Amino acid sequence: MRTDEKLNMTMLCDFYELTMGNGYLKAGLHNRITYFDVYFRTVPDGGGFAIAAGLEQLIDYIEDLHFDEQDIEYLRSKGIFCEEFLDYLRNFRFTGDIYAVPEGTPVFPREPMVIVRAPAIEAQLLETFTLLTINHQSLIATKANRIVRAAKGKAVMEFGSRRAQGSTAAIDGARAAYLAGCCGTACTISDELYGTPALGTMAHAWVQMFDTEYDAFATYCKLYPGNATLLVDTYDTLKSGIPNAIRAFNDVLKPMGVTKCGIRLDSGDLAYLTRKARQMLDEAGWESCKITVSNSLDEYLIRDLWLQDAKIDAFGVGERMITAKSEPVFGGVYKLVAVEDDDGEIIPKIKISENVGKITTPHFKKLYRFYGRDTGKAIADYLCVYDETVDDSRNLEIFDPEATWKRKEVYHFEARELLVQIYKNGKLVYKRPSMEELRAYCASQVDTLWDEVKRFDNPHRYYVDLSQKLYDIKQSLLNRNNQ
Amino acid sequence: MRTDEKLNMTMLCDFYELTMGNGYLKAGLHNRITYFDVYFRTVPDGGGFAIAAGLEQLIDYIEDLHFDEQDIEYLRSKGIFCEEFLDYLRNFRFTGDIYAVPEGTPVFPREPMVIVRAPAIEAQLLETFTLLTINHQSLIATKANRIVRAAKGKAVMEFGSRRAQGSTAAIDGARAAYLAGCCGTACTISDELYGTPALGTMAHAWVQMFDTEYDAFATYCKLYPGNATLLVDTYDTLKSGIPNAIRAFNDVLKPMGVTKCGIRLDSGDLAYLTRKARQMLDEAGWESCKITVSNSLDEYLIRDLWLQDAKIDAFGVGERMITAKSEPVFGGVYKLVAVEDDDGEIIPKIKISENVGKITTPHFKKLYRFYGRDTGKAIADYLCVYDETVDDSRNLEIFDPEATWKRKEVYHFEARELLVQIYKNGKLVYKRPSMEELRAYCASQVDTLWDEVKRFDNPHRYYVDLSQKLYDIKQSLLNRNNQ
Repeated sequence: MRTDEKLNMTMLCDFYELTMGNGYLKAGLHNRITYFDVYFRTVPDGGGFAIAAGLEQLIDYIEDLHFDEQDIEYLRSKGIFCEEFLDYLRNFRFTGDIYAVPEGTPVFPREPMVIVRAPAIEAQLLETFTLLTINHQSLIATKANRIVRAAKGKAVMEFGSRRAQGSTAAIDGARAAYLAGCCGTACTISDELYGTPALGTMAHAWVQMFDTEYDAFATYCKLYPGNATLLVDTYDTLKSGIPNAIRAFNDVLKPMGVTKCGIRLDSGDLAYLTRKARQMLDEAGWESCKITVSNSLDEYLIRDLWLQDAKIDAFGVGERMITAKSEPVFGGVYKLVAVEDDDGEIIPKIKISENVGKITTPHFKKLYRFYGRDTGKAIADYLCVYDETVDDSRNLEIFDPEATWKRKEVYHFEARELLVQIYKNGKLVYKRPSMEELRAYCASQVDTLWDEVKRFDNPHRYYVDLSQKLYDIKQSLLNRNNQ
Repeated sequence: MRTDEKLNMTMLCDFYELTMGNGYLKAGLHNRITYFDVYFRTVPDGGGFAIAAGLEQLIDYIEDLHFDEQDIEYLRSKGIFCEEFLDYLRNFRFTGDIYAVPEGTPVFPREPMVIVRAPAIEAQLLETFTLLTINHQSLIATKANRIVRAAKGKAVMEFGSRRAQGSTAAIDGARAAYLAGCCGTACTISDELYGTPALGTMAHAWVQMFDTEYDAFATYCKLYPGNATLLVDTYDTLKSGIPNAIRAFNDVLKPMGVTKCGIRLDSGDLAYLTRKARQMLDEAGWESCKITVSNSLDEYLIRDLWLQDAKIDAFGVGERMITAKSEPVFGGVYKLVAVEDDDGEIIPKIKISENVGKITTPHFKKLYRFYGRDTGKAIADYLCVYDETVDDSRNLEIFDPEATWKRKEVYHFEARELLVQIYKNGKLVYKRPSMEELRAYCASQVDTLWDEVKRFDNPHRYYVDLSQKLYDIKQSLLNRNNQ
């Protein structure tokens, strides 16, 4: 891993975090302990759940948090920061606590994915980068997981670097895609950095570089006999591409006893062409030849291709996954939910809004997921105040916080806390899982969801309930502010 | 500018570029000179034109092109690259020519934005990063320019870092937005790196940190009397936010003789609330108070707000600009258009496709823009073969390449070449403009377009015509491949 070359991201903050920080210091509020929740309000694409990701980058960022002298100089040149604040920044490091849902966990609207507990300036300065990385990685992981599920067990390869929104979007996007179930990526540097297997086929330019399509194919088969996937749509897929591929397989691979090979289709009607291709390949004795398709694929088009009996062994997915094209924003927010008073007592805070959806759930909270002991499936999530504990040896009545008369008794369940402590007093106390561990964990956790929640369109709403105590605190804060 | 901290991007390539490179070497094709065009097929959002951007990052990338020993080691571990190729990579540098349309220029579908002329392996290795940066920067510049035009002269601030697709998307996205007309960005590091002015207001957390909203506002006015923009929607915009803001202005700013101040609205109905806010501020004698709005803005919502007589002085635009949410992909492609034979003769190459839109325009080309001498307005673009020259002292007949019977005579025009040489034999021969120069150039070039081309919906199609010679070459290659 090329850690030597990471750009320091401390200055990737919104300017108002610095002006507010300067203000907290001058107003004597800088040592006040604050609690911020990161959560999102709706699942992209109308899906039933999202996949949490981005913690790895958040840790990298915090481990490297510091202001250089050139940063201080730049800030001084703005003429609005006091020297005391600039001194404070010179010695800046993170001293707080962070709790987070592990990467790869399915998550639902309105539950905290990350909680930051820290003195006001520190917590405020973390806002932008924390949101940016959690939003971006969760966005791509969520989209990739949808596409992987649509592929029904066939390989999905991440091919989107060239259409990614900048280099981090390509590099870290490939990571999120792999975490969520893709089998690898075309992005070489992601493999080098993260171990997301690099793979690929060939470009049209390779075919054009040779005098004939056959020469291009035969040369490639000679060079990579163990791994020849030929791009057959440079001139005419059915009339020249596939016949030339079969000729090259026969002339080069067959004498070597190689049966492993493939073709890729990147244009035209993929349902029709793959059925024709399968037939031509089978008739030529190349049943072993795998068919890869690419060209503006996503979960919707893949679902349609299956409906039309397309013959596909692998999908190369580009722009629609790496940008989450159909809904390219994961709307995570970073909201103050509590502060500590001088005696260390935690005072819950709320933000009201004209838009009801923008009202926050106050307080330092715990997040439980309830699993059925018989099925192993997730039943509901449960948010409570930090000092509450769920006893899963007894039945528990839960209720919908938006329709409190909807109550149900859960029984024979196991309650697992989802938030894990990542930082304690500024020290990293979390062992980062390997890429492979994350990928396996993600797959196993998605398996705990009922099919109804996994449906692409109009999925069943999974419940995120509040404890009675948390609900009552929220109501009393709402009422107090409405007077 | 913190150039010391840029991550080397050489390995940000699609893996197939390396396997093809290894193949070109083994097939003896590595010294063959190739020509690749970067162009796009459709303007995002159905717009009439795009804004070219991303050249700055492309130059940074090429200046820093090299494979480290750890890269070589990583590639060797894959077990498919020959030692000769790894040696080649160890000494790799760019030796070719690059031509590009300067950043900030309006561009149209099917015309080359970048041309790379280089030995096959070099040109192939540049593919991913070149596309990535041109696609990303042009996407955001194009979107930002639409939003800036919708704002009709009112300030547009880039506020999207937290929703950007990774850190580069935030940092370089803010640059593209500024280039295309935004007045600044919340992204501090972009200002430090590029000089895109950093700005911002306050978060809801600032308001929540104080015992009362009034305390929060009054404290802020005392701290930043010259620049106090108060966020008025934490509790209730009309009942508490604006009255408290007015009280703070009266109590703190008025005695200091300060009239410059502002409020920001981040929720609720922005048309209704800004009209009410304007009225309340004016009645209190704060006609000088500027009203800033934010919350899911883009060119469509801004256009609607004007229609409803909203009272707005500045727009903070976040996720819908930094991700180009309504169409988050700029579909630039990188296609082989010619090779040189052993005698240095340029042989045009074509790529056919089942999808007619994917057929390339072959050959090493020149790109002209014709401006009316009387109006200064752009009339049409004109693509010709590299050895053709347009004489703009004489009338010229041009024709639509998709409907060749549509012909028109252009007269009294000035022909300017759009492609500028950036690299010559691997050496940078282009003086990079400053950020301010780029921004002014972009605005002046957009001014050369007729309003019809600038319409958001259903704009007039601007013509990109081919010379007769280029058209004939394309037809003959198409016919040859169709036999």
